[in-house]
Amino acid sequence: MKKLKRSGRLVDMTNFMLQNPHKLISLTHFSERYQSAKSSISEDLAIIKEIFEGQSIGSLLTIPGASGGVKYIPMVNKKEAEKIISSLCTTLAVSDRILPGGYLYMMDILGSPKLMNEVGRLFAGFFANHKIDAIMTVATKGIPIAYAVGHYLDVPVSIVRRDHRVTEGSMVSINYVSGSSKRIQTMSLARRSLEAGANVLIIDDFMKAGGTVRGMMDLLEEFQANVIGIGVLVESEEAEERLVDDYISIARLDKVDVKGKEISVEPGNFIRLLKTELKEDVYESSTNE
Amino acid sequence: MKKLKRSGRLVDMTNFMLQNPHKLISLTHFSERYQSAKSSISEDLAIIKEIFEGQSIGSLLTIPGASGGVKYIPMVNKKEAEKIISSLCTTLAVSDRILPGGYLYMMDILGSPKLMNEVGRLFAGFFANHKIDAIMTVATKGIPIAYAVGHYLDVPVSIVRRDHRVTEGSMVSINYVSGSSKRIQTMSLARRSLEAGANVLIIDDFMKAGGTVRGMMDLLEEFQANVIGIGVLVESEEAEERLVDDYISIARLDKVDVKGKEISVEPGNFIRLLKTELKEDVYESSTNE
Repeated sequence: MKKLKRSGRLVDMTNFMLQNPHKLISLTHFSERYQSAKSSISEDLAIIKEIFEGQSIGSLLTIPGASGGVKYIPMVNKKEAEKIISSLCTTLAVSDRILPGGYLYMMDILGSPKLMNEVGRLFAGFFANHKIDAIMTVATKGIPIAYAVGHYLDVPVSIVRRDHRVTEGSMVSINYVSGSSKRIQTMSLARRSLEAGANVLIIDDFMKAGGTVRGMMDLLEEFQANVIGIGVLVESEEAEERLVDDYISIARLDKVDVKGKEISVEPGNFIRLLKTELKEDVYESSTNE
Repeated sequence: MKKLKRSGRLVDMTNFMLQNPHKLISLTHFSERYQSAKSSISEDLAIIKEIFEGQSIGSLLTIPGASGGVKYIPMVNKKEAEKIISSLCTTLAVSDRILPGGYLYMMDILGSPKLMNEVGRLFAGFFANHKIDAIMTVATKGIPIAYAVGHYLDVPVSIVRRDHRVTEGSMVSINYVSGSSKRIQTMSLARRSLEAGANVLIIDDFMKAGGTVRGMMDLLEEFQANVIGIGVLVESEEAEERLVDDYISIARLDKVDVKGKEISVEPGNFIRLLKTELKEDVYESSTNE
């Protein structure tokens, strides 16, 4: 492309970084793209790094050496995460989403690409320092969250199906017991959609007793894949005994009072666990307002 | 936030614009955010506009006047669209994706958030000048494309379901005839998930005879909603007669030779129709390489 001044480079590089999270980009790539000296590129990157980290967009990792370069890693600090999560809890607590049977209508939240991206950024930031090869979710409602996480971690998404109208070639199926309804059910994943030995992050929208997540874990064993983590948007406290222990939740549904039309929602364990995941400086880094 | 120099403003504004497509942002917002004069903000925006349009990221629309401001509109020019589409066709033509029955395995494409974003940007750019309130798709495989389009158009996604394991409150259901299998089927959409009179863009991953899309159109009538457009990733030419005429396709599947293990794929009607949608200067604007 034609030679650009610093101002133009900053705009183009910012866009390029945001479109390519977790990708190592060599300084040579940029210096050739803009026909500029690597020294100027490094100065550009220092400016971008300062803004990205100051605004809790993410951190810019610079790897020195011939094989080195720069990598944009989506991140959230404590303050930013708390802001997103508390506004989500407020939205979740709106009483008119109570459905017969104490279910909650959530498509207004799950149907918003903007909200899904925020949730995706939370999980991607949380697992930024883990080696993850793929996201796994189960159709249907987990899919939007899974793709948002997959985008920010730059990894593919594997979609587990519960129906049988499937045209994905040979499938691996397992039976599982839905923890809440105690019914035996089947879930399947296309053989080709996940490599053996992959490191997988399980994502879902809602977890009650955890039967579905448990099923996905069993399914992953069939692929000799490893569960790196489990992230759910909402966990329900009603479950007397969980089939899954080690998971991250954005929000916790304490009680749904169908008669009194009241929903009590609290932040999940995300913030508490984030502290143990992130380096102190990233965790506490203050977002400029 | 603390006062920023132009270099810092450009990085922060670029990120802000990219996160908020189709949103009108007042110059006041920026001048207060950075404690800078509107004149400097206007200069910043001129720089961003030049890069966004030069790199086919989109166009930056400036609305003058008190109620005015700036709006980032994701766009693709002809050259960029052709690049994305031809590489998609090449990927689609890889013979080992042929499944029994002549179906194609597509989860490697549909499972990639990056590819889905590119496809989403194509459709969002195509419909950039239409008033669209919501995206509608049918579970499962259309969902990732629908959310990518929804992100770039900044509108919510409504997911039509074919199963009955649904906890979304009162549903509107219709019967439809799958064009290829000629079987009667049912699809449902949560009453709350779409407002009456909404202008809707229908998105799906694959269209053969068009029975599913036809069904979604009938379902939209139940909501007194308007179909603004129909976008499919892949259309199959095998269908002897289509139930849908007016649609946009990224790729066209001409022939799947199961015995000879050959797939012939061609670009769909997207590029041809794009010319009639975009102003000449946007359509032809050359992407700097």
